[in-house]
This record gives sequence, C-alpha cells and structure tokens, in this order.
Amino acid sequence: MNAYLRLSVAGIAFSLFSVAAADGLPSWNEGAAKTAIVEFVENVSDPESEQFVPIGERIAVFDNDGTLWSEKPFYFQFMFAMDRVAELAKDDPTILTSDALRAAAAGDLGGALAGGKAGLLEIVRLSHSGMDVPTFQAHARAWLDTTNHPEKGRPYGELVYQPMLELLAYLRDNGFKTHIVSGGGVDFIRSIADDAYGIPPYQVLGSMGNARYEFSATGAVVIKETGIFFIDDKAGKPVGIMRHIGMRPIFVGGNSDGDFQMLEWATAGDGPRLGLIVHHTDAAREWAYDSESHSGKLVRGLEEGPGRGWLIVDMKRDWSQVFPK
Amino acid sequence: MNAYLRLSVAGIAFSLFSVAAADGLPSWNEGAAKTAIVEFVENVSDPESEQFVPIGERIAVFDNDGTLWSEKPFYFQFMFAMDRVAELAKDDPTILTSDALRAAAAGDLGGALAGGKAGLLEIVRLSHSGMDVPTFQAHARAWLDTTNHPEKGRPYGELVYQPMLELLAYLRDNGFKTHIVSGGGVDFIRSIADDAYGIPPYQVLGSMGNARYEFSATGAVVIKETGIFFIDDKAGKPVGIMRHIGMRPIFVGGNSDGDFQMLEWATAGDGPRLGLIVHHTDAAREWAYDSESHSGKLVRGLEEGPGRGWLIVDMKRDWSQVFPK
Repeated sequence: MNAYLRLSVAGIAFSLFSVAAADGLPSWNEGAAKTAIVEFVENVSDPESEQFVPIGERIAVFDNDGTLWSEKPFYFQFMFAMDRVAELAKDDPTILTSDALRAAAAGDLGGALAGGKAGLLEIVRLSHSGMDVPTFQAHARAWLDTTNHPEKGRPYGELVYQPMLELLAYLRDNGFKTHIVSGGGVDFIRSIADDAYGIPPYQVLGSMGNARYEFSATGAVVIKETGIFFIDDKAGKPVGIMRHIGMRPIFVGGNSDGDFQMLEWATAGDGPRLGLIVHHTDAAREWAYDSESHSGKLVRGLEEGPGRGWLIVDMKRDWSQVFPK
Repeated sequence: MNAYLRLSVAGIAFSLFSVAAADGLPSWNEGAAKTAIVEFVENVSDPESEQFVPIGERIAVFDNDGTLWSEKPFYFQFMFAMDRVAELAKDDPTILTSDALRAAAAGDLGGALAGGKAGLLEIVRLSHSGMDVPTFQAHARAWLDTTNHPEKGRPYGELVYQPMLELLAYLRDNGFKTHIVSGGGVDFIRSIADDAYGIPPYQVLGSMGNARYEFSATGAVVIKETGIFFIDDKAGKPVGIMRHIGMRPIFVGGNSDGDFQMLEWATAGDGPRLGLIVHHTDAAREWAYDSESHSGKLVRGLEEGPGRGWLIVDMKRDWSQVFPK
C-alpha cells in the first residue's frame, strides 16, 4: 500500500505523513529547493488541499543525461558506441571507413566529435544497428555494469544521482508515475532503467531508430536498422510525451536547453505544476558546466527559468551527496 | 495489495487463490478457452511453478477493434470521423471537396468507403488534424458517450466486451500490466481507455499522425497535423511494441490478420506464452464474420492459429454475455 492509499483509506493526520515524506529525501540539503519539492508533492497528494491532483494525473517526467545520471566526458551512450566500434573493428578492421570511426576505435573522444554530427551518426549507426533489441541491450548493459568511468573510477552505470533516485521514489510513494523522456536512445536506457531507477521499460521514452519485424527459421525478432525514426529532443519532447504518455505531466525535471520545451509545455498546463532544472555547479564531486558544454548545454533555461517559476537545483548547494555510496 | 503479492508475501495455499481467480471470469463459459486462460495465468503467477514468470515480465497486449470492443458496421473511429466531417461541413460546406467527403457528411458509409484508402484518409485527415490533442479527445469522448450505435441502440462507447473486461482485470489482479496495441488512432482510444478498460493513456499504443509543438500567447500545445507518422498494424505491431513497451509480451489477444505478426512474435518468445484470437461467431448477440469482412478480416489466423497453439475464442460458444448489462 503506498502513501497515498494509506492517507486516503485511513485518513491519517496529514502532519504525520508530512514528516515521513521529508525523510524520503535525505540527500537533499534543507533549503528552498527541497522545501519547494516537498510542499508541491504534499499539496497535490492531499485530498484536502486546493492543489490536490487525482492520482491518475500525477505524471512526472525526467530527462536522463545530466538529470538522472552524469553526461561527462560525453553522453554515456556515445562512450559505449565508441567502445562498440573498437570491439567490432577487432573482428573486421575494414569497417573503419572514416576519420570519425577510426578515432572512435582508438578511444579518441575529441577526434570522434571532430567529425561533427555526421561523424557522430556514423559511430552510432555502426554500433546500434543490425541486431535485435535484446542483443543490443545485453551489450549496453554489460558495458554499463563493467566499464569504469575514466575519471570517477567506478562503472558508468553507477554514476546516477542519489538525490534524484530519492526524488523518483518519493514521487512514486505519493502516487506519481515516473517516466524518463530522454534525447538518448530508448533501447540503451531501458537496458538499465528498471534496475537503476525503478522505472520499467514502458515508462522510458527516448530517441528511436528505424526497426523492422523479421520472421525466419531462427525466430521472430525486431531488428534495429540504420536511420532515425524520432529525435526526442527540444520541441520533440512534448510531441513524444503526447505520443507515448498521452498526458501533460505535472512534474518535470531537466538540465539542458534540450529540455526547455518540455519544461515550458508541462508547466504551462492548468493547476499545480513543478519544473526543475539540475544545474551542474559541483566541480569537486561531479562537474561544473552550463553554457559552454558539449553535452547538456544550458543557457536559456538559466536565463528564463527563474522568471517562469522553475526551480534551479544547485548541485553543490542543494545535494549533500551526489552518487550512491 | 494484489493477488500476486498476497500469494508471495503470505504464502497462502495455491488452491485458495485458484478458486478466487476462476471467479474473475464469470462471463466466460466453462470450456477449453476459459480453462486454458486460467491455467496459464495461474502457472505464470505461481512462484512454485516451472512456468513462473517474474511480475515485471507479465506483459499482456490486446488489439482493440474487434478484440476489446465491436467494429461493425465499421471501425468506430471511422464512424466518428464521418460524423465530425458532417459537423464541420455545417459551418463550412466548401470543405466537402470529394465524393468520399460528401458521402461521409451524408452519413453514407458505403459511399465513404467506395473511395478506397484515399477517400478514407481524406475523411480522417479532415476530422483528425488542426487541433490540440485534448480538444480532439473531448470530441471523441463526447461522441463515444452519446452517439447511439445504429443497430445496438446504445452508445458506441458501451459496446465493449464484458468477458474481455473481466480478462483484463483478472490479468491485472495477477500482476500483469495490460496494454492496448491497436491499428486505430492512439488519441481516439486514449479518450476512453482508462474509463472503459482501466488502461491508462501511457499503456495505449496505436497508429499516430504527425504532430508539432506550438508555443504562443494563447498557450503551449501539441497540435495534431495531417500525414501519418506510424501505422500500428501487421508487422508494425511488433515494432511498435518494442518502441513503446520495450518488452516481448507473454499474453497477446487479437481478432484479425492485422494482429498476426504480433501473435507470431509474442508467442515465439522463450517460456510460457498465450496467444488468443477472438472469432466473431455470434450473429445474434454481436456479429458473425471473418474472411469476408471489411473490418477485422481474419483468414490466416484461423488457418494457422490452432497449429501454432493459439487459442481460438468462439464468441458464441465461449461467452455467456457479450456486452455489459
């Protein structure tokens, strides 16, 4: 029985519930951000509040890269793609037909990015197509579990934000459905989302490549093909959410200008809304970056966010812990 | 607490649970179909069974038209589209620029279908684009709630199958997540799916048109545009499921050859699988049709289904009641 049901069924005093809720965010320092989150969640969950939102409408969406886990030195999915290209090139070096692919195989991130979007797409195409989805996800998951981040000395898959894990659980305990809405590839994120965040595959939305159904003597499979089907970024995020979730979320978290339209749209709806931007301000524990970054570039959100009532979460100030212990 | 948790937490004897489960399908006559369904669900839910499936993998998918509700005289969404064209033409008769559109506005189904796929798409385009999603859904829902079916004398939205409502609830009571995977439009189905089937919007997958995000002085909205983004039919169903749900279902229900690949793919997976085809055999209570029908054409499923181990549900024989009382 979750907190919402306990509350409504038994009619327990709201104050008791409130104390329990605040305990659900131990890695958030006391301050404006934590207070705003707790007040919002308590209000929308309280049948006596004017801000009450029925449980079926408590939809929360979060960007992934830079919002739920790190995105340095570059998006983890791309770091994986480079390593996959290196793996594949061991068996067949003739696949390295461009400077970008050769750089990827050599583990040279700067060289791989120097080819711009075209080089990036080559690397993704080679590493992300021509296999069925579970096979791809097995590669992705093994990589996330066993490949150490070059600076943090622990696997990429562990570089999730402890305060955001607590926030996801706190929201679910209060009747929210939590969804990921990422510019990253949906199959990659789904390989770990349930274990890392408690978010099942069907609550993960991301960018998608082409795919085809194939039935043969060896089985019935969905094969990942080359080419882009949908880019879940910027103005694509509200469109993707309406296609996939079918409702306007009331709680939305992001960290970059790729999340701007999602924040704008979600917080423009009627009734109580909370928009949140994770600002990377912690060079010691994580990284400090915004307007000048390759990944997670944030300009407009910082300029316009406060005026729109969005919560700017200052990682250094607001989080007592960044990664899980 | 659902039946699965009760079972696993408290270790209650399996036989008690089994009796409760069977009572969950009162509109299913005793016979091979009901027995196969109950045995399957009991086995995959029983931690002691070799057929046990972890709760997170208990994914069930159902086609909508002809599987969860009726599809005669033609798909309900198309009947709605024709009525919308008639509505719109009252304000501006110049929109009726083709024979198909004029037939639609006159309520002439045969004439509207005589234009083939091109005419059908004209009627859908005119009735389904140029507004935001909630506005479209309000139209759809009002129509479903208030427009009487020409033969059944009750609103279209009530022509859902009572035995399938029971099956959906029975599956959910046993830890399944129930999803709709329809060739029909996702926004149309979502307007009623939660109320009619207990299926929330984010567990409904269907065909999708183009859409764009629009921010203006009047608000932030997702606008339905003309043109097709994705057709969720035939080989598109396995692809759509992997994009939207991200897992291969273990329980799958359909009624037409548009569901063939979904059934084939879902039942080809490892472990226990159940595929089910609703065969429309009841001319008195519903309709009797298969190979010669405009809507819900079924040939290959009947020929190959039994050999593939799929359950053919004979509506006349297996259902003691068709529609809710």
